[in-house]
Amino acid sequence: MYRIGIDLGGTKTAAALIDENNRIINKLSLPTEPDKGNDNVSQNIAALVFELCRQAGIKPADAERMGIAAPGAIDSDTGCIERAHNLKMEHYPLVDRVRELTGIADIRIENDANAAALGEAVAGAAKGTECSVMVTLGTGVGGGFIIDGKVFSGFNHIGGEFGHMVIEYNGRRCNCGRRGCWEAYSSATALVKRTKEAMEENPDSLMHDVAKELGKVNGKVSFIAARRGDKAAEAVVDEYVSYLCCGIVNVINMLQPEVLCLGGGISNEGDGLMIPLQKKIDEEIFVRGIGRTTEIRIARLANDAGLIGAANL
Amino acid sequence: MYRIGIDLGGTKTAAALIDENNRIINKLSLPTEPDKGNDNVSQNIAALVFELCRQAGIKPADAERMGIAAPGAIDSDTGCIERAHNLKMEHYPLVDRVRELTGIADIRIENDANAAALGEAVAGAAKGTECSVMVTLGTGVGGGFIIDGKVFSGFNHIGGEFGHMVIEYNGRRCNCGRRGCWEAYSSATALVKRTKEAMEENPDSLMHDVAKELGKVNGKVSFIAARRGDKAAEAVVDEYVSYLCCGIVNVINMLQPEVLCLGGGISNEGDGLMIPLQKKIDEEIFVRGIGRTTEIRIARLANDAGLIGAANL
Repeated sequence: MYRIGIDLGGTKTAAALIDENNRIINKLSLPTEPDKGNDNVSQNIAALVFELCRQAGIKPADAERMGIAAPGAIDSDTGCIERAHNLKMEHYPLVDRVRELTGIADIRIENDANAAALGEAVAGAAKGTECSVMVTLGTGVGGGFIIDGKVFSGFNHIGGEFGHMVIEYNGRRCNCGRRGCWEAYSSATALVKRTKEAMEENPDSLMHDVAKELGKVNGKVSFIAARRGDKAAEAVVDEYVSYLCCGIVNVINMLQPEVLCLGGGISNEGDGLMIPLQKKIDEEIFVRGIGRTTEIRIARLANDAGLIGAANL
Repeated sequence: MYRIGIDLGGTKTAAALIDENNRIINKLSLPTEPDKGNDNVSQNIAALVFELCRQAGIKPADAERMGIAAPGAIDSDTGCIERAHNLKMEHYPLVDRVRELTGIADIRIENDANAAALGEAVAGAAKGTECSVMVTLGTGVGGGFIIDGKVFSGFNHIGGEFGHMVIEYNGRRCNCGRRGCWEAYSSATALVKRTKEAMEENPDSLMHDVAKELGKVNGKVSFIAARRGDKAAEAVVDEYVSYLCCGIVNVINMLQPEVLCLGGGISNEGDGLMIPLQKKIDEEIFVRGIGRTTEIRIARLANDAGLIGAANL
């Protein structure tokens, strides 16, 4: 039996046909075009579904079920997107619309960070665990919490906002309105900002050369320059890793997930990130007499996590 | 059918016979006497169980089941107390010992903060909710997280340590070894420390009179003096409430429990605490388009929460 996973983003909508072993059989995408109206977004999803099924030689109604990963505030009980700025949606009944268009009865929807966490839990870095957390270090710090193969996001389905945990009281201003949120320290955006500040303060730093090679200042600049022995870059990486560790140990102390996966652009640093991070976590973790503690792993599925997670909602 | 709940503390062991409506039918206690050895602690529990059953005219083996709430690091899978300083226990198979002594087959064990959270969820301030968090503002900041009537404490059963979430990076030193833990700001211990500091800085503060009336400096001093209009006391309360709000909003953003109960000594302040706290939470909460948000309530069961929670493990 096949399931369909949809990853609805502000610019692109991806759709995949997924088999019972969580393998992606076929994957297609279309521009989302939120400016053309909410119903157009639904129609694009339906078009992808029909094309996926045509290529596979099945009917949409034959799909076992379908799941949609979407950004913003989602009410997974009603199937509505309550608010998603980059989709220009407000209280839009996406599941109902897509059901009307495709004839698929069983359609579920979930926030994209939660769906990605579920994808990693069923088929990626946290496969086989009873509980896991995924933290995505991208534009923001996203999160998802999975227990027994299901997303946990609280009674109102808006939990999992690990990035909006204050780790520095009265600290850096966050987009959410609070001060000192983890996101303001551990997102790729925050790292780029600190890198630029450190470059201004250190005109001789190798970070300038690296930025020139890469054509821009991104999350890689400080890591690359630090590997080349640049002191200012090492300080940027060290601070970044310390704040990241702080939030991760907070999550572990509260939830003790079997695995905590790190995803998003920064996680591509691999050992350059993971070795100093694990060292700091080991120093700070509160083991309390029981040997087993959370394993930190890099997410495996990249952009497929949301598609596979959606199909498993 | 009756169930038995045990609340094992460093100084006192309480036992209760609890009916199917979670009413306490009878309650007894004995000194724990941890200095007399681990097996003596088990024997005291058995003695309480036999006496409870004798008074009720039933046999211990007729009890539907029994649960034990205990401090420290508990392995609820094996029934061992892995480490509990104030019980002087290290890797002690408490459940096995108590089973041998009482003949009760179904005995469960859980950390006391988690058991209290479960008690409030089944019979107290969070009754009828699908998920709740209890935060206890006492010597430390304890916590418990309940989903669908069960304790969630992670894959290794040592989660729920909300007090050991850093809210001020590089902040006040915490007993756990980290800096800036919520517990170092929001425990009764932390409040007493700040009250004493403010009293030293403000020799004319009404806090001195209040402390004289109460015979000591405790968690009530600043609240009482603030109600009498003392500015220095108001500043202490205001700072306390701000840090408390910070941690609570962190928990809400991550877990969105239907109810978050506050227990422990400080929660007895009632409206003096809850009105300014709720105001600050409303300012900081991240509602994201969905109206329903966590309700903050004062715990209802006081010391019975652990007993009732234990019986419901």
